Amino acid sequence: MYTLGELSEKLNLEFSGDGQCPITGIATLETAGPGDLAFLSNSKYLSQLEATGAGVVIVHPDHVQACPSHCLLSDNPYLTFARVSRLFDNAPKVPVGVHPAAVVDPEANISDGASIGPNAVVEAGTEIGAGVVIGANVYIGHGCKIGQGSRINPGAVLYHDVHIGELCKIHSQAVLGADGFGFAPGPDGWEKICQLGGVRIGNSVEIGACTSVDRGALDHTVIADGVILDNLVQIAHNCRVGKNTAIAGCAGLAGSAIIGANCTMAGGSGVTGHVEICDDVHIKAMTMVTKSITEPGSYSSGTQMMPTREWRRSAVRFAQLDAISRRLAAVEKQQNN
Amino acid sequence: MYTLGELSEKLNLEFSGDGQCPITGIATLETAGPGDLAFLSNSKYLSQLEATGAGVVIVHPDHVQACPSHCLLSDNPYLTFARVSRLFDNAPKVPVGVHPAAVVDPEANISDGASIGPNAVVEAGTEIGAGVVIGANVYIGHGCKIGQGSRINPGAVLYHDVHIGELCKIHSQAVLGADGFGFAPGPDGWEKICQLGGVRIGNSVEIGACTSVDRGALDHTVIADGVILDNLVQIAHNCRVGKNTAIAGCAGLAGSAIIGANCTMAGGSGVTGHVEICDDVHIKAMTMVTKSITEPGSYSSGTQMMPTREWRRSAVRFAQLDAISRRLAAVEKQQNN
Amino acid sequence: MYTLGELSEKLNLEFSGDGQCPITGIATLETAGPGDLAFLSNSKYLSQLEATGAGVVIVHPDHVQACPSHCLLSDNPYLTFARVSRLFDNAPKVPVGVHPAAVVDPEANISDGASIGPNAVVEAGTEIGAGVVIGANVYIGHGCKIGQGSRINPGAVLYHDVHIGELCKIHSQAVLGADGFGFAPGPDGWEKICQLGGVRIGNSVEIGACTSVDRGALDHTVIADGVILDNLVQIAHNCRVGKNTAIAGCAGLAGSAIIGANCTMAGGSGVTGHVEICDDVHIKAMTMVTKSITEPGSYSSGTQMMPTREWRRSAVRFAQLDAISRRLAAVEKQQNN
Repeated sequence: MYTLGELSEKLNLEFSGDGQCPITGIATLETAGPGDLAFLSNSKYLSQLEATGAGVVIVHPDHVQACPSHCLLSDNPYLTFARVSRLFDNAPKVPVGVHPAAVVDPEANISDGASIGPNAVVEAGTEIGAGVVIGANVYIGHGCKIGQGSRINPGAVLYHDVHIGELCKIHSQAVLGADGFGFAPGPDGWEKICQLGGVRIGNSVEIGACTSVDRGALDHTVIADGVILDNLVQIAHNCRVGKNTAIAGCAGLAGSAIIGANCTMAGGSGVTGHVEICDDVHIKAMTMVTKSITEPGSYSSGTQMMPTREWRRSAVRFAQLDAISRRLAAVEKQQNN
Repeated sequence: MYTLGELSEKLNLEFSGDGQCPITGIATLETAGPGDLAFLSNSKYLSQLEATGAGVVIVHPDHVQACPSHCLLSDNPYLTFARVSRLFDNAPKVPVGVHPAAVVDPEANISDGASIGPNAVVEAGTEIGAGVVIGANVYIGHGCKIGQGSRINPGAVLYHDVHIGELCKIHSQAVLGADGFGFAPGPDGWEKICQLGGVRIGNSVEIGACTSVDRGALDHTVIADGVILDNLVQIAHNCRVGKNTAIAGCAGLAGSAIIGANCTMAGGSGVTGHVEICDDVHIKAMTMVTKSITEPGSYSSGTQMMPTREWRRSAVRFAQLDAISRRLAAVEKQQNN
Repeated sequence: MYTLGELSEKLNLEFSGDGQCPITGIATLETAGPGDLAFLSNSKYLSQLEATGAGVVIVHPDHVQACPSHCLLSDNPYLTFARVSRLFDNAPKVPVGVHPAAVVDPEANISDGASIGPNAVVEAGTEIGAGVVIGANVYIGHGCKIGQGSRINPGAVLYHDVHIGELCKIHSQAVLGADGFGFAPGPDGWEKICQLGGVRIGNSVEIGACTSVDRGALDHTVIADGVILDNLVQIAHNCRVGKNTAIAGCAGLAGSAIIGANCTMAGGSGVTGHVEICDDVHIKAMTMVTKSITEPGSYSSGTQMMPTREWRRSAVRFAQLDAISRRLAAVEKQQNN
């Protein structure tokens, strides 16, 4: 619980209205009550602002007049909301120390102040930094390093030789360091290529549930500082993902794909192997990237949704496109004779 | 083991043939033997019916004449098959009670008759209903509720504040309540938005293996009664999925997508953020939904599979489509002069 | 550590240069040092060969002249690299025997020489072959069989009645034998069809992290010998995947899809239900297969990536394609009058 005045001080932002106004939670403009703080980050919701029951709203100074409640003033209300959300974090606290049901190898190095949950397994040669939280049923293989303040949520798995920086958050069922999909065709079928590289993850990286980052074949797979990966994302062996790049759910990178910094890949998009994408590229939902991109900007593939009956007609014509194009050229030629 | 007569009575259906005929299992028309029950749900398999070795077949009354075996008569043989399959359920029974290797917080509330498997972890403030089965290595966070008769299979993870109704089945490696993918762009990179909402799942919901349902940012993520989600499905924060909707494998909903009741989303389809889909909408396989749908019906995107060599020609022309269209308009104009 | 001469002997390959040259690791041409072995598998990297610092390079005899280092000669350098990689396997060894924190039912049959990791759970009626490695936190249900030399990595889950052949590798969070997505529409919503079949996996199969292979409805789901499945792959109930077929990340097969032998499915591709694909078919990335394929070859769908602004114009025209085609036909007709 904070007063508006306290929030204003903590965030170094001005306010208008009653600084004593108590704030007990955060809510949307539509559902907020008098004890709640809400925010307006997009002027298309101005009508919601005017109707809100929130006690306090984070608004841009331009919108103070329209706000029926007390205001916390911010040039970037959405960013301020992010910062306030962290003051109201309601995730349960975990106890410091090694739970008696954890299985920690005597040759693992667990810093004071780390928390190792029940049934977690930590193998030899692994270093767990200060304040790290290893959740229940997590497996951490040999020779891993987890930087201070990072959190590995219940059920996640790290194979051997996976290094994670500081202040990272790895969600449940994520798998870091599984074998890359490397096989050579041999006379009797696929022959396994042992994946000898590791995984190197920078600081302040978040990795979603059921996301997989494979170990490298020879060199490491590398995720730079500040990268955020959503759920069910596939990062194949020897990929490199640049600083502050965001990859949304169900997207996938094939082997040795290199993604620049400050890129975004929307949900369900994919990148084929050995492709390089430069900085500041934005891949739209379900887009397939099959060649390198050297110019920043937004890229798309696919077609837009249509009623299936109409879509079928277009789809049939798509298969005839080359013929259609040639027929058009013939018509043009005859017309111009 | 049942006799045909017993099945007939249990299911309140008529039969033709010998009511004493013993049925020891269920099989397809093609593989069934004299002790098996099979079913015909689609008349395109009539030739299989005529050749079947099954002791009993569930058939529509119209097909009794064509059936070489005893018959269980049903207006809806597929539905009858579903009900019979549950009489022949061969999944192993689990022992009631808390396994000694489970780690249950003393402040968790476990109903009599629940089963908590080995190495499962149940945190404080959680309520486990009567007859609930918590599999091995499952993690249930703080303040969860699992309604009676629900089943959480080995390895699944529930973060804190996840409520599940009655008679649900959650498959292995499913993750309910991981953080939504909420970040605000800040001066030095992404800033985390704490995800303060929970997950609310209705009754009779089935959630597949490796499927992820994120917790809400402020409000809850909501899955209504009777929803079925297949494997590897992504449900982002604050989505709402309406009653009896079915979502097949590898499909994904981005944040705040709202899906109506009685919809189907086929495999690999996707819905972008903040889109609303009305009731009774059917999204075809691998379709990308980027805008709201207000009319019931079937929707598609993409193109149909072609031999790659031919596809490349069409794909090249797709990139020229606007020019092609303009050239056609020019030709038409000249022709009409 | 091997000398070049030792490798030459082990692999039955000739070499050129100093047989005493010690090899302590494997690296790429670009990063290799004097103690490393590298390989040239594609002549487009010839310039890297010429500049390499590797002590030894695996090369085709045609490229010996261009190689600045000692050479291991191979008609198939990539395959030789695969075999060498296995000599340099750096994965940690696991101790033989049942870890005291494992929970093994007395009616499970564990062969001598198997390794059962901490917190693994093995149910009754299951047979674990010689040399099998069951990782930490793995769950193996009732009546499973794991053939000798197979490895189940930490956190993977096998439901009951899943048989795995010899020398398989199942990665973390894989789920084998979860219920197929089988429901019949009933008067009040979906009615569950109990999935009574199992899963049958051949020898030398590799299954990636977070990949799901569902159990069959009546018959088994079948994965043949030598199949390799990448991460986050969905194999639905009653699919059959033929020998030596490779399926890359994020691909999915719907129910009862049948894939031939020696096929490849690239990342993100999908196959709808009851489709049959013959041997030697290659499905390109993110391709949607909605009908059976009876001719070997390469198949594609979708469109190629474009800058979004240009893509939008093409996408709008795609919706008009049938009209465009009809207008073209009208123009042709008028022109030919």
